[in-house]
Amino acid sequence: MEIIKNEKLYEGKVKIIYKTNEQNILWIEYKNSVTAFNGLKKDEIVGKAILNNKISSLIFEKLNEKGIENHFIKELSDTEQLVKKVKIIPLEVVIRNIVAGSMSVRLGIEEGTILENPIIDFHYKNDELNDPLITLSHIKVLKILEDDQIKEIEKKSFKINEVLKDIFDIAHITLVDFKLEFGLDEKGEILLADEISPDTCRLWQVDTNERLDKDVYRKNIGDLLTAYEKVYEKLKSK
Amino acid sequence: MEIIKNEKLYEGKVKIIYKTNEQNILWIEYKNSVTAFNGLKKDEIVGKAILNNKISSLIFEKLNEKGIENHFIKELSDTEQLVKKVKIIPLEVVIRNIVAGSMSVRLGIEEGTILENPIIDFHYKNDELNDPLITLSHIKVLKILEDDQIKEIEKKSFKINEVLKDIFDIAHITLVDFKLEFGLDEKGEILLADEISPDTCRLWQVDTNERLDKDVYRKNIGDLLTAYEKVYEKLKSK
Repeated sequence: MEIIKNEKLYEGKVKIIYKTNEQNILWIEYKNSVTAFNGLKKDEIVGKAILNNKISSLIFEKLNEKGIENHFIKELSDTEQLVKKVKIIPLEVVIRNIVAGSMSVRLGIEEGTILENPIIDFHYKNDELNDPLITLSHIKVLKILEDDQIKEIEKKSFKINEVLKDIFDIAHITLVDFKLEFGLDEKGEILLADEISPDTCRLWQVDTNERLDKDVYRKNIGDLLTAYEKVYEKLKSK
Repeated sequence: MEIIKNEKLYEGKVKIIYKTNEQNILWIEYKNSVTAFNGLKKDEIVGKAILNNKISSLIFEKLNEKGIENHFIKELSDTEQLVKKVKIIPLEVVIRNIVAGSMSVRLGIEEGTILENPIIDFHYKNDELNDPLITLSHIKVLKILEDDQIKEIEKKSFKINEVLKDIFDIAHITLVDFKLEFGLDEKGEILLADEISPDTCRLWQVDTNERLDKDVYRKNIGDLLTAYEKVYEKLKSK
């Protein structure tokens, strides 16, 4: 059956979500926007939509091959994908292999410090509150998830970390940290959703530690398109 | 044996710690200082030292009576106490029965919301970093405590909450939340330390919810001495 794009459901900072003629399928269109610091810094970069769509599609396909179920169905065009509809859980699930970004600032630990074991941080996905770090108790107080659902997300996230690390290792990229979002599908099952791209991962080139992710934009230390293109080329060729 | 005050060991925001002629005993002198917002707001209030010393001594004595070991040995004067020497663990352990303060701001939950179950939050005691909220993983990354020590502190803190709630209930005061600090004694045992006072607890008068704690100073909503005196009188008479 042909999928037809219907009305806009939601417009986020970097993606527009449309309904389709299929109740459980959504149509995602990537935008050329880039934002940082909860939208305080914002730009349009022509070509970014294509790269985010292509990288995220490639990674979701690779995860599928490795048995990690996710919402991705297929690429429709340079900037569009079809995904399974889920109700997004309002958590940013952050897995960290190396200290960087907000963890470095919060704990006063130098960026680049390798963690003995990967750790998981949960942020409450709430722009008004500036996506604060929250604890497992807070997740329950906010009635976001039950204990067993938190455990399931932790388990899935660490598994995804192992698979993603392998995918990036082969491409000579170090996976420093990354943010995942999960949703509940029509059966209430937890499914990996959103996107996985240099917008949502910290990616450092092996050996040089050259930044190949949104930090080049956050910190004004390079050209975003060049960095994202490198990631795409490295991933695609492996 | 008579305890003699020796040289100053450390001066904090509201207390001065002196060594004594006994290696495992410290001499604490309360100051009339009050600070808020990590020292950004600061004042001297004559009479505060006496109230903090008297309230904290009274509460530590009551905890001792209820079998909760702590560092308090005895009151020496209106503003001085003797305590067992411990190596303070750099954590602010916060127990919350009702949402208030930073939790209300962080999670966007109205102050006064009663929690179904008490929760525990850990803050990294580090003025330079502004005492950030941290997770159990962060405590381990920072090598502050091992898993079993964290569990012991959690257990002790919830037990202290039960005992403190009773102590304040009898005095017609609601224990909203409070901050504890623990230390390691010469045997490496975890011991409750620091102070327990309206500087470290949120205390609301039953029925009226009148604030009887440092929030009257933080928020400029009343007279600190009057509030602290009320707490002392209510506790003493029960």
